[in-house]
Amino acid sequence: MTPIRLAIVGLGKIARDQHLGAIEATDGIDLVAVASRNASLENVACFADIHELLASGVEIDAVSLCTPPQGRFEQAKAALEAGKHVMLEKPPGATLSEVFALETLAREKGLSLFATWHSRAAAAVEPARALMAERTLKSVSVEWKEDVRHWHPSQAWIWEPGGLGVFDPGINALSIVTRIMPETFHLVRSELTFPANRAAPIAASLAFETKSGLPVAAELDWRQTGPQTWDIRVETEEGTIVLTHGGSRLIVDGEAQIVEEDREYRNLYRDFVALVTKGDSDTDFSPLVHVADAFMLGRRIETEAFED
Amino acid sequence: MTPIRLAIVGLGKIARDQHLGAIEATDGIDLVAVASRNASLENVACFADIHELLASGVEIDAVSLCTPPQGRFEQAKAALEAGKHVMLEKPPGATLSEVFALETLAREKGLSLFATWHSRAAAAVEPARALMAERTLKSVSVEWKEDVRHWHPSQAWIWEPGGLGVFDPGINALSIVTRIMPETFHLVRSELTFPANRAAPIAASLAFETKSGLPVAAELDWRQTGPQTWDIRVETEEGTIVLTHGGSRLIVDGEAQIVEEDREYRNLYRDFVALVTKGDSDTDFSPLVHVADAFMLGRRIETEAFED
Repeated sequence: MTPIRLAIVGLGKIARDQHLGAIEATDGIDLVAVASRNASLENVACFADIHELLASGVEIDAVSLCTPPQGRFEQAKAALEAGKHVMLEKPPGATLSEVFALETLAREKGLSLFATWHSRAAAAVEPARALMAERTLKSVSVEWKEDVRHWHPSQAWIWEPGGLGVFDPGINALSIVTRIMPETFHLVRSELTFPANRAAPIAASLAFETKSGLPVAAELDWRQTGPQTWDIRVETEEGTIVLTHGGSRLIVDGEAQIVEEDREYRNLYRDFVALVTKGDSDTDFSPLVHVADAFMLGRRIETEAFED
Repeated sequence: MTPIRLAIVGLGKIARDQHLGAIEATDGIDLVAVASRNASLENVACFADIHELLASGVEIDAVSLCTPPQGRFEQAKAALEAGKHVMLEKPPGATLSEVFALETLAREKGLSLFATWHSRAAAAVEPARALMAERTLKSVSVEWKEDVRHWHPSQAWIWEPGGLGVFDPGINALSIVTRIMPETFHLVRSELTFPANRAAPIAASLAFETKSGLPVAAELDWRQTGPQTWDIRVETEEGTIVLTHGGSRLIVDGEAQIVEEDREYRNLYRDFVALVTKGDSDTDFSPLVHVADAFMLGRRIETEAFED
């Protein structure tokens, strides 16, 4: 099969750190163009934005959007209306209404839309899911605590409405939990801690319940210095299952398991090639639904101003 | 056909003001039981809560939930699992995840689930919708301004997380706009004004865009004394369409139109009978999706404390 001719829109940190290398390493897809306001890449056609790219006559089959979520709707809509398959970085958009509209548009156009959740492609996620399906679950608790100054230095958009604050990493945890749990869950309590000078939360404490009544808790915090914590702990009648390091390592009943080398973004591009080939879409927006619920149901606590 | 045997859960203000009379006036449905912690009704079986009701052996076919949205999931789930059709007051739940779960459960059980939006059943809504479909739209603006002290005296739950604050009435406007607009729209800017001592907003300023780029604005405010405003103004190439009085009156190009007498809740129960008879559901949650988006994308402004 002829490789998919791909354009990347948004050549920021995530595109350079993850996407470029993953595309290079994936069969069936070639990077042929880039749209970025401030950056360019050698050996591919470069444009200032997606509209210039689409008007240029450069032939592409698909677009991968690596821009911040605010404003991504216009880009995705333009790409779909021009007949291009679309892959979305997480979170898939700034609102649920817009991502539901993109889902409808992709279906109407017969195009593939892939709302990616890179943490779902982490190495321990599928083994954990398979194991949990065989066990009797008792509870799940998420601890997702990192240092925002280290991971998001001076990323102003992340503190703006739509940038999601601590949910930017926290949604990764929710994307794993929604994948590995054998039943759905919904929020019953939410506390959001906002710095006095910011429009997005720096910490969140969430309590969910599954449909059958099991507790799922999540503590998200952006103020953790020293060792960083990205852990999901599942208590079962048969023992404890722990995913650490953002879903890349697995500990079962106290014993570290051997899982594959972590290759989140290569898995995503492999999956995108498969979706386009089969004419399918993958649009599970449930992690973003939980985040919207956390804001809607959230009790707000104000804390000291945050400066970068 | 044998009438549907209905139980009401929650015998508060909305049930007494609207539901009881509408059920009485509707063919095909009879009230046979009530579950309410603090109130009872003559001539029907009365229980403290839905679990007692379902365990009692009193035969019912359907349940109408008139309780506040927080905690309604457990009641709706219990009813559906017991094989009862369910009608939900607005808003349909405290979170999107829970209402999506109810939708799935109703489908699995082959039962009717009706997420009602009483303002959609107002007399001017369908005439406005039909007219808008024939015209070229330019913009929509909503003004929904009322006195919370008059309409929600001492309703503490409405100020709690999940109570939605000014979106409790404002979601009525959104339920009309989502019905009458010929295309979907999504939020692009949201400002929420919170009293210093409350967990829910007292005012909201929202800017949406339709898929094709038309502006939809909404100004919601709970601090309006004197005349109350529940208006939706639609500018079109051919003139102006205005819905006033919460969707019960229609003014087209400056001329008041004759519409039917307003009978919102009777229309809802008529529709519920039809859904149950046909084995269908009506679960358009888009007004609640917009509210969740407004919280997620909202910039918060603090204002003076509110006391009842």
